Amino acid sequence: MDDERYRRGLEKFREVDGKGGEKAVEYLKDIVPEIGRYLAEYPFGDIYSRPGLDIRTRELAAIAALTAMGGCDPQLRVHIHAALNHGASRQEVIEVILQMTVYAGFPKALNALYTAKEIFIKRDSNGKG
Amino acid sequence: MDDERYRRGLEKFREVDGKGGEKAVEYLKDIVPEIGRYLAEYPFGDIYSRPGLDIRTRELAAIAALTAMGGCDPQLRVHIHAALNHGASRQEVIEVILQMTVYAGFPKALNALYTAKEIFIKRDSNGKG
Amino acid sequence: MDDERYRRGLEKFREVDGKGGEKAVEYLKDIVPEIGRYLAEYPFGDIYSRPGLDIRTRELAAIAALTAMGGCDPQLRVHIHAALNHGASRQEVIEVILQMTVYAGFPKALNALYTAKEIFIKRDSNGKG
Amino acid sequence: MDDERYRRGLEKFREVDGKGGEKAVEYLKDIVPEIGRYLAEYPFGDIYSRPGLDIRTRELAAIAALTAMGGCDPQLRVHIHAALNHGASRQEVIEVILQMTVYAGFPKALNALYTAKEIFIKRDSNGKG
Amino acid sequence: MDDERYRRGLEKFREVDGKGGEKAVEYLKDIVPEIGRYLAEYPFGDIYSRPGLDIRTRELAAIAALTAMGGCDPQLRVHIHAALNHGASRQEVIEVILQMTVYAGFPKALNALYTAKEIFIKRDSNGKG
Amino acid sequence: MDDERYRRGLEKFREVDGKGGEKAVEYLKDIVPEIGRYLAEYPFGDIYSRPGLDIRTRELAAIAALTAMGGCDPQLRVHIHAALNHGASRQEVIEVILQMTVYAGFPKALNALYTAKEIFIKRDSNGKG
Repeated sequence: MDDERYRRGLEKFREVDGKGGEKAVEYLKDIVPEIGRYLAEYPFGDIYSRPGLDIRTRELAAIAALTAMGGCDPQLRVHIHAALNHGASRQEVIEVILQMTVYAGFPKALNALYTAKEIFIKRDSNGKG
Repeated sequence: MDDERYRRGLEKFREVDGKGGEKAVEYLKDIVPEIGRYLAEYPFGDIYSRPGLDIRTRELAAIAALTAMGGCDPQLRVHIHAALNHGASRQEVIEVILQMTVYAGFPKALNALYTAKEIFIKRDSNGKG
Repeated sequence: MDDERYRRGLEKFREVDGKGGEKAVEYLKDIVPEIGRYLAEYPFGDIYSRPGLDIRTRELAAIAALTAMGGCDPQLRVHIHAALNHGASRQEVIEVILQMTVYAGFPKALNALYTAKEIFIKRDSNGKG
Repeated sequence: MDDERYRRGLEKFREVDGKGGEKAVEYLKDIVPEIGRYLAEYPFGDIYSRPGLDIRTRELAAIAALTAMGGCDPQLRVHIHAALNHGASRQEVIEVILQMTVYAGFPKALNALYTAKEIFIKRDSNGKG
Repeated sequence: MDDERYRRGLEKFREVDGKGGEKAVEYLKDIVPEIGRYLAEYPFGDIYSRPGLDIRTRELAAIAALTAMGGCDPQLRVHIHAALNHGASRQEVIEVILQMTVYAGFPKALNALYTAKEIFIKRDSNGKG
Repeated sequence: MDDERYRRGLEKFREVDGKGGEKAVEYLKDIVPEIGRYLAEYPFGDIYSRPGLDIRTRELAAIAALTAMGGCDPQLRVHIHAALNHGASRQEVIEVILQMTVYAGFPKALNALYTAKEIFIKRDSNGKG
C-alpha cells in the first residue's frame, strides 16, 4: 500500500468532501471495506492533489458535471458544500448551475438549483456562508 | 426585439464561440433563421454576460459538463478553443477533463482527452497557445 | 427588456406550465431573481410561441424526451398536466410514454408510467380530466 | 410464432422505417437471425400499431427522445425520414428538435438540427418533400 | 396471441423479477392493460429465454447497465434480488457495481452500492442470502 | 509510487485491454504523462484484480454498461475484444448487447450490435475467434 499517497489523499478527501464523504465511507465499509482507500487514493490522492487546477475551480466543474448528468443528487450536495468551503461564493455556485440550462437543458439545471437552495438554507441554520 | 441585449449577446457569442459558433449559425440559418438570435440572446446576452462568474471558469465548467454528458463533441471542441482564448491554460483544460474520470468514468474522459489533443495539435499548427 | 416578448412568454408560461411553473419561480426567485424572466422569454416567448407546431404535440414531445432522459420527474409531472390541459388525452400520454420502452428501454418508461398514474389519480381527486 | 402479429408488425416496420430499417436487419441478421422478427413484433406489431396515437405524433415524439438522448444518430435519421413520410412537415421536424434546446440543452439540439439539414438535402436530391 | 411464448415468458418473468415484477404489473394494468403481456413476451419470452447466456450473467449485466444509466433505482432493486436468487453471490453483485466506478464514475456506482446495501439488509431481515 | 500494485495493474491492463489500451496510453502520454499509471493502478491494479468476479463476467458487464451509456464506442470495441480474449464467446457478447434492447432501448443496442459485427469481421480477418 502506498502510505504517502494514501495519507495525502485521505487528508484531501476529508478536507474537500467533509462529513458527506465520511458518512459514505462509514455506510459502505461493511460491504466494500476498501472503499475509503479507493476514494482517498485515486480521486483525491491522485486527481484532486494535482497542482494544475485550484480546488475552487475543480468544485465548480464538479457541480457543472453533476448537474448535467442528473441523478447524482447526493454527490451534488457534497460538492456544493465543498465549493462553498473552498473559496467559491454562493453566487458562483448558482451561476455555474444556471449556465447548465444552456448545456443540459432547463430541467436538470432547475433540479440542481432546488438542491442548491436547500443546501444554502441548511448552511444558514448552521451559521455557515 | 431587444436590440441592446441582442447586440451585447452577439458580441459575446462571437468573442466566446468564435468561428465555431459562426459556422453553426451559417449552416443552420436556412432551416432556423432565428438561430443566430436565439444563440446570441439567451446563452450569451443573458447567461454568459452575467457578472457573477468569470469566462475562464464558465468555459472550464462547460468542458466538464460536455465531457460528462458525452456525445457532444462539436461543442466540446468549440469550448476548448473558447477556454484557451479566455485565460485558461492547456493544463487547466486537461485537468478538468481528467477530473471527469472520477465523476463520469474513464471512457467519457478519455474520449474528451482525445479531442483536446486534436485541438492542441490544430492550434499548434496555427501558432496559437 | 423586451416587454412584448416577456408578456407573451409570461402568458404562455402560465398557460402551459400552470401552478407547477409558478411554484418553481416562487421557490427559486430569491437565489435567481431573473428566473421568471428567463423561463418566460426563451422557452415560452421564443420557442413555445413559434407557430410551426401545436401545443398538444409539443407537450407530448416534451413527455417523450423527459421520459427518455430520466431523472427529471418534477418536470415530467408539470408536462403531463400541461399535455392534458392542452388537448392530449390520457391515452395519448400513456401511448407516448409506452413508446419509450422501444427508444429508451423499459426501466425509464415504466418509471414515467408510475408518475403518469399518480398524476391521473391526483387529477381525478380534483375532478379534472 | 404469432404469424398475424408478425405480419402486421413487419408491414408497419417496412412502412415506417423504410430502407433504414431494412438495411439494419440485413446487416445484423447473420449475428442475430431473429432481429427482423424482434423489430417487427414488439416495436411495430405491438407498440406502433396501437391505435391511441397517430404515426405522425409518434414519429415526432421519437425525434424528440432521440435528440434528447444523444448518441443515436442512425436512428434519428431513420425517424426524420419516417416523420416526413407520415404527415409531418419539415417545419414540424425542425420545431420539435429546436424545442429540445429547452429540455436537453443547445448542444444535443444543435447536433440533431445538423442531422435534420443533411436529411433534407438528401431528400431534395431525391425529389422528396 | 402467441400462447406458448406468453406462457414461457410469464413463467420466466415471475421466476426472475419475482414480487417486484408482479407489483409493477398490478400497479400499471389499469392504465396499460397489456403491460403484463408486453413484459412477459419480449423481455422474458424472447430475450431472457435465449439459451446463449445464463441468467446469473444476464442479471449481473443488467445491474451494470442500470448502475451506469442511473435514475433507474426501482429496477436496480428488482435485479439485485433477481441476481441473488439466480446464482450470483452478494460479493459478485458488489463487484459488478464497484467496477462501474471505472466506466460510469464514482457517483453512479456509490448510489448503486447504497441501494445494494439496503437490499442486503432487507434480505437479512427475511432470512434470505 | 506503489510498485507492486502498479506492476500487477500494468500486467492486467495489458492482458485485458491489449493493443487498444496501449494505443490510448501512447496517444495521450504527452498531454497526461501519468495516464498509463492511472489506468494501471485503479481500474486494473485495484478493481480488475479483485478476486470476487471473473474477467469474463467483468467484460460482459462492461459491454452492457458501455452499450447502455452510448457514446463510448472506442471503449466498447476494446472490451468486445477483451471479452472474446477472456472466455466469452461471440454469442455471449451478442446476447448481452441484445439484452440491452430491454434496459436501454433498441437504438443503443442496435448501435452496439453494429460495432460488435465490425469487431467480428476484423477478428475473422486476423484469424481470431
